[in-house]
Amino acid sequence: MKKYNFGAGPCVLPREVIEKTANAILDFNGIGLSLAEISHRSKDFKPVMEEAQQLVKEVLDVPEGYSVLFLGGGASLQFCQIPANFLVKKAGYVNTGAWAKKAMKEAKHFGETIEVASSADDNYTYIPKGYEVPSDLDYLHVTTNNTIYGTELHKDIDVPVRLIGDMSSDIFSRPVDVSKYDCIYGGAQKNLSMAGVTFVIVKDDALGNVEREIPTMLDYRTHTKKGSMFNTPPVVPIYTALENLRWMKAQGGVKTMEKRAKERADLLYGEIDRNKLFRGTVKCEEDRSYMNICFVLNDEYADLQDDFFKFATERGMVGIKGHRDVGGFRASCYNAMTIEGVKALVSCMQDYEKKH
Amino acid sequence: MKKYNFGAGPCVLPREVIEKTANAILDFNGIGLSLAEISHRSKDFKPVMEEAQQLVKEVLDVPEGYSVLFLGGGASLQFCQIPANFLVKKAGYVNTGAWAKKAMKEAKHFGETIEVASSADDNYTYIPKGYEVPSDLDYLHVTTNNTIYGTELHKDIDVPVRLIGDMSSDIFSRPVDVSKYDCIYGGAQKNLSMAGVTFVIVKDDALGNVEREIPTMLDYRTHTKKGSMFNTPPVVPIYTALENLRWMKAQGGVKTMEKRAKERADLLYGEIDRNKLFRGTVKCEEDRSYMNICFVLNDEYADLQDDFFKFATERGMVGIKGHRDVGGFRASCYNAMTIEGVKALVSCMQDYEKKH
Repeated sequence: MKKYNFGAGPCVLPREVIEKTANAILDFNGIGLSLAEISHRSKDFKPVMEEAQQLVKEVLDVPEGYSVLFLGGGASLQFCQIPANFLVKKAGYVNTGAWAKKAMKEAKHFGETIEVASSADDNYTYIPKGYEVPSDLDYLHVTTNNTIYGTELHKDIDVPVRLIGDMSSDIFSRPVDVSKYDCIYGGAQKNLSMAGVTFVIVKDDALGNVEREIPTMLDYRTHTKKGSMFNTPPVVPIYTALENLRWMKAQGGVKTMEKRAKERADLLYGEIDRNKLFRGTVKCEEDRSYMNICFVLNDEYADLQDDFFKFATERGMVGIKGHRDVGGFRASCYNAMTIEGVKALVSCMQDYEKKH
Repeated sequence: MKKYNFGAGPCVLPREVIEKTANAILDFNGIGLSLAEISHRSKDFKPVMEEAQQLVKEVLDVPEGYSVLFLGGGASLQFCQIPANFLVKKAGYVNTGAWAKKAMKEAKHFGETIEVASSADDNYTYIPKGYEVPSDLDYLHVTTNNTIYGTELHKDIDVPVRLIGDMSSDIFSRPVDVSKYDCIYGGAQKNLSMAGVTFVIVKDDALGNVEREIPTMLDYRTHTKKGSMFNTPPVVPIYTALENLRWMKAQGGVKTMEKRAKERADLLYGEIDRNKLFRGTVKCEEDRSYMNICFVLNDEYADLQDDFFKFATERGMVGIKGHRDVGGFRASCYNAMTIEGVKALVSCMQDYEKKH
């Protein structure tokens, strides 16, 4: 039975990226050594790092003056690295859920931190809008996609201060106006690579404005100066990122990724809205995420929850259980999810409706 | 031509570990999904994390009361994480080279840091001995193997304060008396796994003694409390670690690893000492590393440096160029280096001697 992986992350990757990674682990570029065994300073790996950085710039149309880093530790480590490098006196955070709150919590270790806007009042079922951004902030931090609640900020906002975006779960799913951000970061394990590498796109001249001592590994300048090779980087996850970037580029880049994401989302949200059993959990339709599509059974069918999960699982749907903070179901549709996968889920929902 | 990978790290891994990793990336445990695509919270990955932690404990005979963590960021990130968690007032470091100095540098961000002993006076060609360890230190930090200089602390020392060891390049190469240490850590990319994961073995009740606020990701308790699953761990590098731990155990554990390491080292140092062209760089014979075997051409043959490198490379020796701080050659002989590999290098040295 064909399986469709709707997991929230680590998640589905293009099959050819998987196969190329496996082949490189057996023998990298025909050199008779495994990708897992080669030195990161070797002539074999350096071009991997350089091409991966270059392709991030090309695919996202990153302007001059930005560096691309591939680090370890996950986005969670960035939650403290961001304020260590950018917070002089006061930082602002838009609270769109659990991950935004975790990011904000770490900033408090480094200075005054304010919640500029929040959708906590309605369990994060919308993206706050129309809020004022104080002009004395060192930066405003946004989480552009909220995997747990299925909300997404689909546009790059204009703010009067530095803008920093955690794009862990929607990077490479649409064109981004990088020039609006001083830093974009995220874990790679959705649209970029396997787990184990973290991307950071940082404006070089935005660094060096804080007076605090920053431990070497937490100072972005350590890594920008060394081309992300200050210490041993996660070699295999970076190679997988390279192969995925090559795949994205060959498919037509982020414009194609966006078109496919909208097609998948339109199809699945259409079925959720049509099907008498289900309803979406995001209150504000324009904030519905294209990446994480959250839905629950309508109240009168609520006791079918476990049964539908079993029904869907038996038909090859993987990872559709919703996060415990929202309940119900979550179909994550990252770049490598095919429209066939979404059609299979829609069929599954329709067949289940017929039974009831 | 068969290649022998003497690279200093990332380095040679057992072939079956490589093959199992590649297979798991294509299809993990026959579940129809790639290891690179599965959730770290899934029933498929949890046993991987648990068995890997358990096998570290088993293979190293770790006493009760210690936690095993698999983190990101490399040993370089631990250089600041160690003092963040352990330095109350004053830390001591044994300076055995570049990596020890890097570790010491980061501690200075957190409190008073003293160099308890050093072999800098002779370019780190020996391991300091007979030094006094002040009893008011919060901890003493040692780097047990020094990849650049080819020195190794072959025994676990007794000190009157907490002992912390960076064992990045000799972990799992010999039995360790873990009870003597409050923390042992290292990058995985020598004897444990591919690059991208960092191991930490920490005594639980040694944590929580500092009063400073520690950012969440840098606080070891964050990870000990969550079984090293606070955030998404590096899934594939951890799996490779598991397969390597299984391999080590099947081979007879660290006692076998130590026996093989000594056999390899005896053979290669024997040839270095016998061959008229070469000499070892480590002054104190008992401090010669079993992992990184450094040698240079004798002065009268010094102009043959590039030629021998070419000669050896053409015969399949990979990665034997010495570090620029020492020059000459370095044959790294980690756990997965076969005695055949060392014999091939020895033959190469003997054949080269016959030519001159």
